[in-house]
Amino acid sequence: MSKFSKDLTNIKDITTEEIDYIFDVSEEMLENLKQDKILNLCSGKILATLFYEPSTRTRLSFESAMLRLGGSVIGFSSTEGSSVAKGESLADTIRTVASYSDIIAIRHPSEGAARVAAEYSRVPVINAGDGGHQHPTQTLLDLFTIKKKKGSIKGLNVMLAGDLKFGRTTHSLALALARFGVNLFFSSPPGLEMPDYIIRTLSEEYGINSRISHNIRENISEVDVIYMTRVQRERLVEAEYLKYRGSYILTKEVLKEVKEDAIIMHPLPRVDEISKEVDMDSRAIYFEQAYFGVPVRMALITILLGVK
Amino acid sequence: MSKFSKDLTNIKDITTEEIDYIFDVSEEMLENLKQDKILNLCSGKILATLFYEPSTRTRLSFESAMLRLGGSVIGFSSTEGSSVAKGESLADTIRTVASYSDIIAIRHPSEGAARVAAEYSRVPVINAGDGGHQHPTQTLLDLFTIKKKKGSIKGLNVMLAGDLKFGRTTHSLALALARFGVNLFFSSPPGLEMPDYIIRTLSEEYGINSRISHNIRENISEVDVIYMTRVQRERLVEAEYLKYRGSYILTKEVLKEVKEDAIIMHPLPRVDEISKEVDMDSRAIYFEQAYFGVPVRMALITILLGVK
Amino acid sequence: MSKFSKDLTNIKDITTEEIDYIFDVSEEMLENLKQDKILNLCSGKILATLFYEPSTRTRLSFESAMLRLGGSVIGFSSTEGSSVAKGESLADTIRTVASYSDIIAIRHPSEGAARVAAEYSRVPVINAGDGGHQHPTQTLLDLFTIKKKKGSIKGLNVMLAGDLKFGRTTHSLALALARFGVNLFFSSPPGLEMPDYIIRTLSEEYGINSRISHNIRENISEVDVIYMTRVQRERLVEAEYLKYRGSYILTKEVLKEVKEDAIIMHPLPRVDEISKEVDMDSRAIYFEQAYFGVPVRMALITILLGVK
Repeated sequence: MSKFSKDLTNIKDITTEEIDYIFDVSEEMLENLKQDKILNLCSGKILATLFYEPSTRTRLSFESAMLRLGGSVIGFSSTEGSSVAKGESLADTIRTVASYSDIIAIRHPSEGAARVAAEYSRVPVINAGDGGHQHPTQTLLDLFTIKKKKGSIKGLNVMLAGDLKFGRTTHSLALALARFGVNLFFSSPPGLEMPDYIIRTLSEEYGINSRISHNIRENISEVDVIYMTRVQRERLVEAEYLKYRGSYILTKEVLKEVKEDAIIMHPLPRVDEISKEVDMDSRAIYFEQAYFGVPVRMALITILLGVK
Repeated sequence: MSKFSKDLTNIKDITTEEIDYIFDVSEEMLENLKQDKILNLCSGKILATLFYEPSTRTRLSFESAMLRLGGSVIGFSSTEGSSVAKGESLADTIRTVASYSDIIAIRHPSEGAARVAAEYSRVPVINAGDGGHQHPTQTLLDLFTIKKKKGSIKGLNVMLAGDLKFGRTTHSLALALARFGVNLFFSSPPGLEMPDYIIRTLSEEYGINSRISHNIRENISEVDVIYMTRVQRERLVEAEYLKYRGSYILTKEVLKEVKEDAIIMHPLPRVDEISKEVDMDSRAIYFEQAYFGVPVRMALITILLGVK
Repeated sequence: MSKFSKDLTNIKDITTEEIDYIFDVSEEMLENLKQDKILNLCSGKILATLFYEPSTRTRLSFESAMLRLGGSVIGFSSTEGSSVAKGESLADTIRTVASYSDIIAIRHPSEGAARVAAEYSRVPVINAGDGGHQHPTQTLLDLFTIKKKKGSIKGLNVMLAGDLKFGRTTHSLALALARFGVNLFFSSPPGLEMPDYIIRTLSEEYGINSRISHNIRENISEVDVIYMTRVQRERLVEAEYLKYRGSYILTKEVLKEVKEDAIIMHPLPRVDEISKEVDMDSRAIYFEQAYFGVPVRMALITILLGVK
């Protein structure tokens, strides 16, 4: 697809039409997976997974995607054991690894690292998360999951709940959802609200007046999608944690107020913000959401490699 | 093989007939390996090796087995770098990884972890060792080695020597051997004897009156199989260690008393309980035993995946 | 190639004719890579990468080489998580891993480790660096790069610059270059000179009177190849470091004195001994040099496996 840029570092860089195309290919890949088809689209191609900080789920999902396409994988899962310890710059590592591989997925603690990598790499670079700044493949698989489970994204009532201040992937998700014309509900403990500039962008650029609450039960009966995120203990002083914790756990009890055809999402890993008893509810689709990461990443790899 | 359960978590769960079938397939796989045949039985299939504690030998053996079958591998070799650090439960990790792969091999420090994993996984789970509790593929490769080298297991005199108290894989091995009708000799330093409940089970359920000694030379001239294990230094106070150490080293000298057609086995890694000089003796087959781990694991993978 | 020994542990063990043959195969592999050919030369074969100390670049280069040949890879990237922690000897680890794989690449902190590994392995062993003693695949890719970029090695003026005392791979490189009949220039800060026994061997065995300087600018206008190495900070006391640092940084300014058709090499990782501004100069070919590691290692693997 020549209209795509060489890399995927920021969800903002791709158009809504491109997202739709990625979803068409993802759908096709999902069908291949379901039929246990052996694919050779990436035969002879190598994915390098450069994980400067650990993220088992994301790494294994990328690796599974490449292997399902008939390709293979090299890489590292932490900087221990990498040339980084010897003082090498990111640019130098990327230039070298790019000559060993055909496509790179990079996870890095510093904001903007993926863009730097893309600049120095002769092969496509996919941002697998840079310092909480951007994690575009997560955003894409979240959107794909909503579309897949609800038929279409347009017009849905979507609630993002939990830590909306530091959980920065919810910022990208909110802005990406806005493109498809949704109604947004933000629910967080006091002090962990969605930042003002996001609220303002949503209103000014997309005409979306998001609804804000400090209790997960508020508005919950109106929404079609509940997207839970972790409230990281270290973000709250202990007293506050104990105070607000109860309000941000999705229990079977809370679920009673939720629409029959709503879906409960979570980027995982989950700690205790969704009770285990909820797992058996048919609306809880977070493990299926994680699974969709594979076909979405398969789609991206094939598109960026130009084998699709 | 529909008669097999989805998983292999405990050697007790499989019948002696199933073990025989595994050995038939293992034999076939060994033949394939010897002929350098390129197999495609697992083309397009992914094994996930989830090693919550390190075990290079076991991990590499599983990975080699899957690659020899034409499949591929994802995984981690220690919890560092896994979602475990973020507080994720085993059940959640398994549910996610099961959606990235076709079969899982799990090593975990907690007893029963493999069974929990099997419960939450939609794909087959193989226990690659859980807290010294069970290590069924080790037991199977041990049995296969004996059968392969001695023609049959029935009626053999088998000595287990070393730490029989804490070296818990010897417990599984003793009980598994009992099914085939062997005579058992247990030789250990005082304080490291085979636990009473094993001795009792052997006697009551299998009618085997095992013979016990505290010197490796005792009975050694009568046995067909000597299975040595490590005496872990930390299990003995220093004085006792020095006292009993000498009695539990298999030297060229001790070997003089052993039958010409006996076999010397060891699960490896070995520290110094078998002298290096013994390696050249044709009865020392522990490296071949390690090699047999590959065809046995190939057999298990193909059976559990239903591609055999 | 039956004339090759089973292993490659020391560059001295292979003849100049064998090196020429390796280069012919490397050239062929490079051509395959450029044409994106999918190779099956190593289908069904397994490379074990046993890295007892981390070296991302070398490990990924070996893995890429094997995958490009259609083979697959098992291994570990640090001793953490290996049986070494349980006190296993190198010989035992090698004997076991050799039964899981078809060829081994070993990196180890102890001098001579690769030779020990070769002795105990039934499959070919490639030394991927043992304690700074030998790193023959680095030497081969350095020679290949020079030949490829300059047409031939014979008669070239080659300068090795930086830490020539502790940077021991420059010792192997100097001796290997000598076989092809070059003129050698050694430039290092005082105290980090090329050892006397190398200088003497070059003179006595090859009739090469190497030229020595303590400033990188000296002789720099005469040379065809500049091979820079890191001056490791810990090798110099701070004052000396600051004093000599300036003389051993290759800047755009210094480059003005260098021949138009010279080449600038570096084994990487680079810290600051080559300014980033130099990267854009067409004479700076160190990233291409790193890339050549893949075809050279592909050549070695195919030759040692006897599939070429």
